[in-house]
Amino acid sequence: MISKSQISFIKSLHQKKFRKEHGLFIVEGLKSFSEFIGSGYEIDSVFHTEDLSPKLSKLSQNVKIYRVSTEELSKISALNTPQHLLAIIKIPENPEIKPENLKGTFHIVIDGIQDPGNLGTIIRTADWFGFKYIICSQDTVEVYNPKVVQATMGSLPRVKLIYTDLINFFAGTDLPVFGALLDGNSIYKTDFGNEGLILLGNEGKGISTGLMSKITVPVTIPRFGKAESLNVAVSASIFCSEIRRNS
Amino acid sequence: MISKSQISFIKSLHQKKFRKEHGLFIVEGLKSFSEFIGSGYEIDSVFHTEDLSPKLSKLSQNVKIYRVSTEELSKISALNTPQHLLAIIKIPENPEIKPENLKGTFHIVIDGIQDPGNLGTIIRTADWFGFKYIICSQDTVEVYNPKVVQATMGSLPRVKLIYTDLINFFAGTDLPVFGALLDGNSIYKTDFGNEGLILLGNEGKGISTGLMSKITVPVTIPRFGKAESLNVAVSASIFCSEIRRNS
Repeated sequence: MISKSQISFIKSLHQKKFRKEHGLFIVEGLKSFSEFIGSGYEIDSVFHTEDLSPKLSKLSQNVKIYRVSTEELSKISALNTPQHLLAIIKIPENPEIKPENLKGTFHIVIDGIQDPGNLGTIIRTADWFGFKYIICSQDTVEVYNPKVVQATMGSLPRVKLIYTDLINFFAGTDLPVFGALLDGNSIYKTDFGNEGLILLGNEGKGISTGLMSKITVPVTIPRFGKAESLNVAVSASIFCSEIRRNS
Repeated sequence: MISKSQISFIKSLHQKKFRKEHGLFIVEGLKSFSEFIGSGYEIDSVFHTEDLSPKLSKLSQNVKIYRVSTEELSKISALNTPQHLLAIIKIPENPEIKPENLKGTFHIVIDGIQDPGNLGTIIRTADWFGFKYIICSQDTVEVYNPKVVQATMGSLPRVKLIYTDLINFFAGTDLPVFGALLDGNSIYKTDFGNEGLILLGNEGKGISTGLMSKITVPVTIPRFGKAESLNVAVSASIFCSEIRRNS
């Protein structure tokens, strides 16, 4: 049983403004939620419809657990098809970037991606290929948007997202920058070496003009047909795969 | 100016049942719509808010053209953010598959993908990499769903989708079947040869049990991190890219 004020509080977390104000975000579904247990994220509360006692017994004593009806869950869920469990989790501090932590491997840099599904899919793909950091421009869609969290399919606890000013960020690193462009070198002939940054631009506008000069290696996924462009999460995935296939 | 009955007719095309009944589907946005002009698809009507006269002058005399207000367009649009133009296009006949047309190259076979965004992204990716046919099981999401059409970003006229019984389909072809599985051979070490079918399963359930025996080469995208799986459109893209990189 949950109160009307709880319902309206949780629903407010569907909006960025209130997530920021309260420092909380929503994760839905037992499978995705399980990945947050013991991951370092602080769990505030859990609302569930089914008997999940064995799984929930692993949670710390401080987590508030509420058994709710399917109807109550549908009132607080951000999904079209609610998934038996909704958890409220504390938003961690935006991690700091220490340039030395980025050396010796590859990271994804995102310049203004707007679609939550695209960002979530990139996080999931980064987790599959073992990329640990994603550096995002300040105008990239917020990672705690419920649609982003949903699309990550539980990968969020394993991938660190850092929102920062990309101009400053590039000024502080000497890693090679592989920019995903339509007129670069073929990705199949690119030597990625053993470290670097993969820079991906906005869905419609691509990489910002101000960042173009930061690209050290322009890279293109060759086109064999006639589509005008690839989806940005698809491009990201092909970059991740090409880097790993040679590692 | 459009009538109330036109509005309710167009809105009915947001639903599969009425698309089937009327043999019509919706395409939104000038860019996507332009790809259908002269493509062999028969255009029924166009509703637009802005002055598009030069572009619309290329259309056949039989196409009905309506200038509408932004408010009217928002009433008939299936998008959250309507895009100045909505066209109604005739659904073509489900093309027949002639096995001889499939020889000598690669095609995508889809077993029960449900998410419209995933199917649309696969069509767009297929068009980028020059794959011309996608063979879909009967329970795959319908290609004329507005969300599929939207996600194709105008690639639909260049990729032929065929909905068919996959058991029968596989019985009639001797092409190698590369199945996307979690426990196959590394895709980086797979010799795809010069023709074949890439079989992709449903988002949650994977490839149906009944189709597993049709797979001649089980193929896996190696995992370097900890995500449980990859998004199916991402997997499809990495398969397409691997096949083309070696071609």
